[in-house]
Amino acid sequence: MGKVICFGELMLRLNPSGYLRIVQAENFEASYAGGEANVAVSLANYGEDAAFVSVIPDNLIGQSAVNSLRRWGVDTSLIKRSGDRLGIYFVEKGASQRASKVIYDRKYSAISLSTASDYDWKSIFKDADWFHFTGITPALSDSLASVCLEACKAAKEAGVTISCDLNYRKNLWSKEKAGEVMGALVPYVDVLIANEEDASDVFGITAENTDVESGSISTAGYEKVAAELSMRFGCKAVAITLRGSISANDNNWAGMLYSNGRSYLSKNYLIHIVDRVGGGDSFGGALIHALHSGYSEQEAIEFAVAASCLKQTIEQDFNHVSESEVKALMNGNGTGRVQR
Amino acid sequence: MGKVICFGELMLRLNPSGYLRIVQAENFEASYAGGEANVAVSLANYGEDAAFVSVIPDNLIGQSAVNSLRRWGVDTSLIKRSGDRLGIYFVEKGASQRASKVIYDRKYSAISLSTASDYDWKSIFKDADWFHFTGITPALSDSLASVCLEACKAAKEAGVTISCDLNYRKNLWSKEKAGEVMGALVPYVDVLIANEEDASDVFGITAENTDVESGSISTAGYEKVAAELSMRFGCKAVAITLRGSISANDNNWAGMLYSNGRSYLSKNYLIHIVDRVGGGDSFGGALIHALHSGYSEQEAIEFAVAASCLKQTIEQDFNHVSESEVKALMNGNGTGRVQR
Amino acid sequence: MGKVICFGELMLRLNPSGYLRIVQAENFEASYAGGEANVAVSLANYGEDAAFVSVIPDNLIGQSAVNSLRRWGVDTSLIKRSGDRLGIYFVEKGASQRASKVIYDRKYSAISLSTASDYDWKSIFKDADWFHFTGITPALSDSLASVCLEACKAAKEAGVTISCDLNYRKNLWSKEKAGEVMGALVPYVDVLIANEEDASDVFGITAENTDVESGSISTAGYEKVAAELSMRFGCKAVAITLRGSISANDNNWAGMLYSNGRSYLSKNYLIHIVDRVGGGDSFGGALIHALHSGYSEQEAIEFAVAASCLKQTIEQDFNHVSESEVKALMNGNGTGRVQR
Amino acid sequence: MGKVICFGELMLRLNPSGYLRIVQAENFEASYAGGEANVAVSLANYGEDAAFVSVIPDNLIGQSAVNSLRRWGVDTSLIKRSGDRLGIYFVEKGASQRASKVIYDRKYSAISLSTASDYDWKSIFKDADWFHFTGITPALSDSLASVCLEACKAAKEAGVTISCDLNYRKNLWSKEKAGEVMGALVPYVDVLIANEEDASDVFGITAENTDVESGSISTAGYEKVAAELSMRFGCKAVAITLRGSISANDNNWAGMLYSNGRSYLSKNYLIHIVDRVGGGDSFGGALIHALHSGYSEQEAIEFAVAASCLKQTIEQDFNHVSESEVKALMNGNGTGRVQR
Amino acid sequence: MGKVICFGELMLRLNPSGYLRIVQAENFEASYAGGEANVAVSLANYGEDAAFVSVIPDNLIGQSAVNSLRRWGVDTSLIKRSGDRLGIYFVEKGASQRASKVIYDRKYSAISLSTASDYDWKSIFKDADWFHFTGITPALSDSLASVCLEACKAAKEAGVTISCDLNYRKNLWSKEKAGEVMGALVPYVDVLIANEEDASDVFGITAENTDVESGSISTAGYEKVAAELSMRFGCKAVAITLRGSISANDNNWAGMLYSNGRSYLSKNYLIHIVDRVGGGDSFGGALIHALHSGYSEQEAIEFAVAASCLKQTIEQDFNHVSESEVKALMNGNGTGRVQR
Amino acid sequence: MGKVICFGELMLRLNPSGYLRIVQAENFEASYAGGEANVAVSLANYGEDAAFVSVIPDNLIGQSAVNSLRRWGVDTSLIKRSGDRLGIYFVEKGASQRASKVIYDRKYSAISLSTASDYDWKSIFKDADWFHFTGITPALSDSLASVCLEACKAAKEAGVTISCDLNYRKNLWSKEKAGEVMGALVPYVDVLIANEEDASDVFGITAENTDVESGSISTAGYEKVAAELSMRFGCKAVAITLRGSISANDNNWAGMLYSNGRSYLSKNYLIHIVDRVGGGDSFGGALIHALHSGYSEQEAIEFAVAASCLKQTIEQDFNHVSESEVKALMNGNGTGRVQR
Repeated sequence: MGKVICFGELMLRLNPSGYLRIVQAENFEASYAGGEANVAVSLANYGEDAAFVSVIPDNLIGQSAVNSLRRWGVDTSLIKRSGDRLGIYFVEKGASQRASKVIYDRKYSAISLSTASDYDWKSIFKDADWFHFTGITPALSDSLASVCLEACKAAKEAGVTISCDLNYRKNLWSKEKAGEVMGALVPYVDVLIANEEDASDVFGITAENTDVESGSISTAGYEKVAAELSMRFGCKAVAITLRGSISANDNNWAGMLYSNGRSYLSKNYLIHIVDRVGGGDSFGGALIHALHSGYSEQEAIEFAVAASCLKQTIEQDFNHVSESEVKALMNGNGTGRVQR
Repeated sequence: MGKVICFGELMLRLNPSGYLRIVQAENFEASYAGGEANVAVSLANYGEDAAFVSVIPDNLIGQSAVNSLRRWGVDTSLIKRSGDRLGIYFVEKGASQRASKVIYDRKYSAISLSTASDYDWKSIFKDADWFHFTGITPALSDSLASVCLEACKAAKEAGVTISCDLNYRKNLWSKEKAGEVMGALVPYVDVLIANEEDASDVFGITAENTDVESGSISTAGYEKVAAELSMRFGCKAVAITLRGSISANDNNWAGMLYSNGRSYLSKNYLIHIVDRVGGGDSFGGALIHALHSGYSEQEAIEFAVAASCLKQTIEQDFNHVSESEVKALMNGNGTGRVQR
Repeated sequence: MGKVICFGELMLRLNPSGYLRIVQAENFEASYAGGEANVAVSLANYGEDAAFVSVIPDNLIGQSAVNSLRRWGVDTSLIKRSGDRLGIYFVEKGASQRASKVIYDRKYSAISLSTASDYDWKSIFKDADWFHFTGITPALSDSLASVCLEACKAAKEAGVTISCDLNYRKNLWSKEKAGEVMGALVPYVDVLIANEEDASDVFGITAENTDVESGSISTAGYEKVAAELSMRFGCKAVAITLRGSISANDNNWAGMLYSNGRSYLSKNYLIHIVDRVGGGDSFGGALIHALHSGYSEQEAIEFAVAASCLKQTIEQDFNHVSESEVKALMNGNGTGRVQR
Repeated sequence: MGKVICFGELMLRLNPSGYLRIVQAENFEASYAGGEANVAVSLANYGEDAAFVSVIPDNLIGQSAVNSLRRWGVDTSLIKRSGDRLGIYFVEKGASQRASKVIYDRKYSAISLSTASDYDWKSIFKDADWFHFTGITPALSDSLASVCLEACKAAKEAGVTISCDLNYRKNLWSKEKAGEVMGALVPYVDVLIANEEDASDVFGITAENTDVESGSISTAGYEKVAAELSMRFGCKAVAITLRGSISANDNNWAGMLYSNGRSYLSKNYLIHIVDRVGGGDSFGGALIHALHSGYSEQEAIEFAVAASCLKQTIEQDFNHVSESEVKALMNGNGTGRVQR
Repeated sequence: MGKVICFGELMLRLNPSGYLRIVQAENFEASYAGGEANVAVSLANYGEDAAFVSVIPDNLIGQSAVNSLRRWGVDTSLIKRSGDRLGIYFVEKGASQRASKVIYDRKYSAISLSTASDYDWKSIFKDADWFHFTGITPALSDSLASVCLEACKAAKEAGVTISCDLNYRKNLWSKEKAGEVMGALVPYVDVLIANEEDASDVFGITAENTDVESGSISTAGYEKVAAELSMRFGCKAVAITLRGSISANDNNWAGMLYSNGRSYLSKNYLIHIVDRVGGGDSFGGALIHALHSGYSEQEAIEFAVAASCLKQTIEQDFNHVSESEVKALMNGNGTGRVQR
Repeated sequence: MGKVICFGELMLRLNPSGYLRIVQAENFEASYAGGEANVAVSLANYGEDAAFVSVIPDNLIGQSAVNSLRRWGVDTSLIKRSGDRLGIYFVEKGASQRASKVIYDRKYSAISLSTASDYDWKSIFKDADWFHFTGITPALSDSLASVCLEACKAAKEAGVTISCDLNYRKNLWSKEKAGEVMGALVPYVDVLIANEEDASDVFGITAENTDVESGSISTAGYEKVAAELSMRFGCKAVAITLRGSISANDNNWAGMLYSNGRSYLSKNYLIHIVDRVGGGDSFGGALIHALHSGYSEQEAIEFAVAASCLKQTIEQDFNHVSESEVKALMNGNGTGRVQR
């Protein structure tokens, strides 16, 4: 199997401990994360040869970010070290009726100011056979949107499979802008990933009979959404995560994979949440691993949903689980008995 | 709008972290709180001009207590600095079938030893149009019971609205003593606040068909209790919080406002509790703000219950929420989806 | 009442804080625990004169372990100080579908290398009228299996009641070996304790209509298991804990006591778990106290199950509850209202 | 006495605990600080009516920054809430031969992007009789340099005394730029403050016989520097702090005040440093208080040096000392005997 | 050797971590300590059979205090459990020129309100041959002063050696009162302990050529003080600790023992202080052990000074050192090379 | 430049925070370290291609150890994953006269039980041109002593330079055994490293006029020791670290390099110590880098001593410094002024 290239921003994540609100915090737990970096760590945990492509400042904060990826086995040799600042985001964990809050301080980050000349895609894709990015990367700047397009073209040329998570972030760009930019990128994408809101936000493709806020979700509606995405952009596979928020502590979690005209629905998990940030990325990382490893469609979606269920029981963004732990859960061991 | 004056004791709160029991603790988290101070902080968070009246010793512990109120925007210029000790209480957080424990070490506190000459009510009520105290303050000493009476008289004279939370504490005084003292104070009160047990403990007014320990609560019964309180003491409004304890982690939470012969019942919230201490005070603070701001009765009770629901998802006594966060919940957004 | 002697290994327990996984940990919370030591601490908490017998190295780690027992009132004067290392185990707390993990590093511990000459059972049982050990002790080494047999014989000779918790650990010995060794020890045992899996693992006595992994448990099946154990080995009483794992956070918990041909089933508790490690030991400690104090059978099983329910709401292995707290729960106060 | 207005940037300070390096940190201690905010807190601690003028974003991080000033008694009502980000800086505490490190991430902060229209100096100086800023504020942007000039003019017009700490930061601007901008501002300044390097860096005025790196400092040389500054810019008083770095842990610390053609040298303190960041600001704050309160020149410089000596024994930037604590030290009680 | 009885108050000690000031603290480290309890723990660490006599409230805080003594091997069976509150004191660690601060909140503690009927001295002194108390105990209340006198009489009657540390605390009583009360107690004392200020404060016996504040100490002067104390009160031995405070971090530390007309001066240690609170008590504990064990006078004072030197390198009040560690230091190993 | 191979044990290091003693600890800070691993991390920090060879168990603790090396850029692909346990050591930080303590629990570790068949030296030395081990590795077991000999032979055959730090540990083997085994290994060694005690302990080669315990060190004496070592074993270079322990907090630190008949003495540093464990290893790592990079002898010893001076200002074993930081110190910047 070839290398998997993940391209995106790596940020410093700061969160108060436990359920403290930011205004109460005298300390922040510090970790380093980002949509595509989270995927890279998942892949490395499953034994994949995962490399991360980014631009990170050459200071102690940037070095700490790079070290963090190395710790989990991600290849960091393709990261360019330049620029002034690492993006930062603050996370406040919600509880019960109080929602989690994410505050971004990522403007002017090194990667968002990077340009085409910072990346040599031909050399990056040497030995690679998979390329992953998310809708966050092109949202960071017009320059990065172009870079993503170049990357997709170079990937196609190199015969590299492309996956993309729509990952719409309303505070980075408007729905219109997202629709336009992603509309030009997704045609290159082989495996498209989205959550229950993305397709509607970015492409205006809405699931019928579904009210995301209320927690009621119609799987039939999402089957249509996936089919429509697949048809419109020619994606070989479309995967959709389905979250039913009961409260900040308790969520239903499932997923669907649409491929070759058929849809495969996973089991549903009622999750008592430890930290849901990074949940979608852990789904993407597991799905890529499953498809990269030749799992069947049903196995792939079960693996991706079980993996991302486990992520939400783990602190911080990265999904620290092994392939065998995920398989144990997808094969039915979810009652949490002590393992001695 | 005029200033809101809150009068009571401010204490040092010490609690082990997480679910550790006190006998296990090698560290205590330190914060400063008290029934009326909690209300003052709520009010300041909603943008009210809230001032706290108390007697606090002039040492580093007292200064820390004052600083804590200043941090959240409460006017501390009316606090008298004298006396020897700040009251202390220890909180041990319960879990599941294990109840939370509160241990008081508040005897001989500066305020409990204060006398009438420590307070100049006429000057305190300058620019004020609301006065709040709770049944804890007169319970601290006979001297403070007299001070409360003087304060009520001065408030009435100054045309200041008076609110009082019955807040019966069985380790501070007997039911008989409480009934006698509060019976002389409540006739001055415009807005009376109580939880599902107070009216019975202090005035012997019991809700029918209700067994507090079992978690079964009859709202009809409490409507009668409110009417009886309103009639007996002439209060313009009576608000009652209704807690159904399923376990130390899970509680039902609702409230009722009785006003002009009608009762207004709020939505019920099933809360996964982070810290329930201060829950009643956050109800009081929000209710005062709502009434002070001219909300309708139904809006007022919904605002108060939503605010105090959120409090119980927040560590420590103070309710660190904004008016807009409370309104979002009372308008239906309680599923805890991440806000980015 | 005489002294209760508990014999077994005391270990250093290391766990990351909160829900962090071991691979994320930069700190470990350190405590000292072990199946029989946990029982001794429970007994001391209930006012019993409990002494712990073990071999513990004479270094700072060993001293810390001894101090830990002294802190909770256990008599440590019978502990022999020699050998090189204290056993260690790492605990990772599970959440939702992610199971808790225990990693043992207890090989070559001082006690596991101890021999008959390290123990003077006659002198140990002076003033004692109860002896407790678990299946973990003989599993540590062949030498300790012999020591246990000697201890049982000496206890019998001294007229001391013997209790034993089967406590099967698959990473310490095989089912066959366990069956053989325990088969020789249990005939000396008066009060036999087991969880829902032990009887099957050790003696091949299986409850009908029960699938432990699925969370469905048939109490009728376990009644037969208890009767069979009692009959086969001549135990006066057999107690079985019944855990229904819904998830790592939520468990059903009950117990059954079989005595004189009758079985007594306890109430069931749905527990929101804080730390379930040590749950079985807290059941044993409470049961021994109840039987030692002459509680009736029904009271004994209710006391043991309520005590162990509370343990699972408390961090670390030891059960820091008093007799009155347990009785309050077994008498119905399980709604977790704040106690001021 | 009138109000003291301090104008500058307030930042989030993040530092690893103890002597951990940034690359080792899994947690950052969070506080809020800045050159002029540090002065404002010192002033409030001495009982001055100190107000802080700045532009701070209207989000949870900004609110935490404002709360932090309120906690210590600074008037925050003049702060404008707008813009996107609060500046951040990371501090790594040095030890022995390893120097402390400060990493700035303050570009694009709300205040640095603010313009003249964000400030109404006439209204700001109402009730004020002192204005303080440092060389950091005009260094943040050309726009802020103009704002500082406007502020100085308005202060002069309002009869407000102006103090300025040169505070040269080489990573914010070049020496040339600093010389040019400060050269236009200092003529408005009544009380000029500098450390042993600033006058040389900004204005090329160098002390003879001094090698800052080596720790050898000639007070005679600095007397000339002060005289030259006073003459060139017409400042009524010039104060210079004199730091002799022996190591990151041990520093000599003294100060000199030049006024009306005479220089007043303070005692020297050999400080065992806890946290030296903010040391210069605590000198400025104490000096302003002393001059504002009519201390004699010798008393003023002794007060300022004693205060800033104490600051360096206190964690974080703010100087949490009272006037009486400073006076005790300047009057000779520096042997650190326990005060019970 | 017989049991050593230590009589006094046990308090909850709360201190911010590291060098944080109390006004900065969001957490307090919690431990339990007191002058005589500190001595008891030292004695238990040296293998003595030490018992603590006190009155401690029967709540969770009191239980934690008792557990703390048990953890270190002190016999707590003579402690009476009654009363309302445990005394508390706050410690703020000084640094360099900033002195450590102790704030007492010990008024109205259970022991201070205890009376003669709470103590059965005859039974307490059974099996004992040494009794230790300090000047703090009689300072707590008039009642306790009488209790101390009774205890001394009972001890004499039982043939028990009495040691007393003058331990003058100016915030507990005046010098006059102290002189009067201690003047009646010290005649019973065999071994009198004092620091360099106590004899002057309590009995007006002043060392010539000594200025405690300046750090200059004349040992000749203290020889005379000891002789005078011995003569005036008939003490068999008088020991004086000699602290030379250079700064809050660095102290000189020595001691002198006067016995049978001769004085024995110890080595001097220049200590880099970790926590000096409890330093005097650790001197007392070690001296009692040395005299109780029949060390020579020179050995005894060297042991006591070395032990208390080590205490000041250890956090919190208790001196966690073994006899062999103390002997290693008194025999010259003070260079702190790593012991592997 | 070729790869540097470091061979040895990697352990879990557990230490209480700050100056707490082990018996006080309720938490341990967890890191992973070992003599040769510490060298590997130093090398990676200087940009060398450093690989670590070891045997590490395939469980979560072992994985954490491997991750720790990856985090700092060490190549872990040559580590064999097998065996049962990772060695553990406990560190207690000394202060002033109280020495640091190290307690080993490393018996039966995976590497100590490894045998020749676990290592394929020919393949390991592919692309390598330097091999480093220390006297700890052969001390772990007879089997490892043989493995070291094989490794040395294979290295020589592959033309790889060999460095060895004598690193005598008295609790691992006797001086006689060490002398015998090391006597057979050192003849293969090109660069021999020792501290001021090793040559005497292992080979009985003693420096004249030196008393290590007293802190007085004769450099002339060590010049002779180095010459003798070089002559006896044919080492091209011999480096000796010279530590003068004043106290656990303050040490003098210097080094000497003997090469081609000449000795090169470094500057001396008076270090205020943060953590001295790993100091010698950081000297070795820096020396190897300097020699590997072709520094002159004087530069090499200055670099090694400056690097290891900085290490002792950093928490834990690893030396987190860059080449430029070390050069800044060796070029004279040791006054610790803040770097902004």
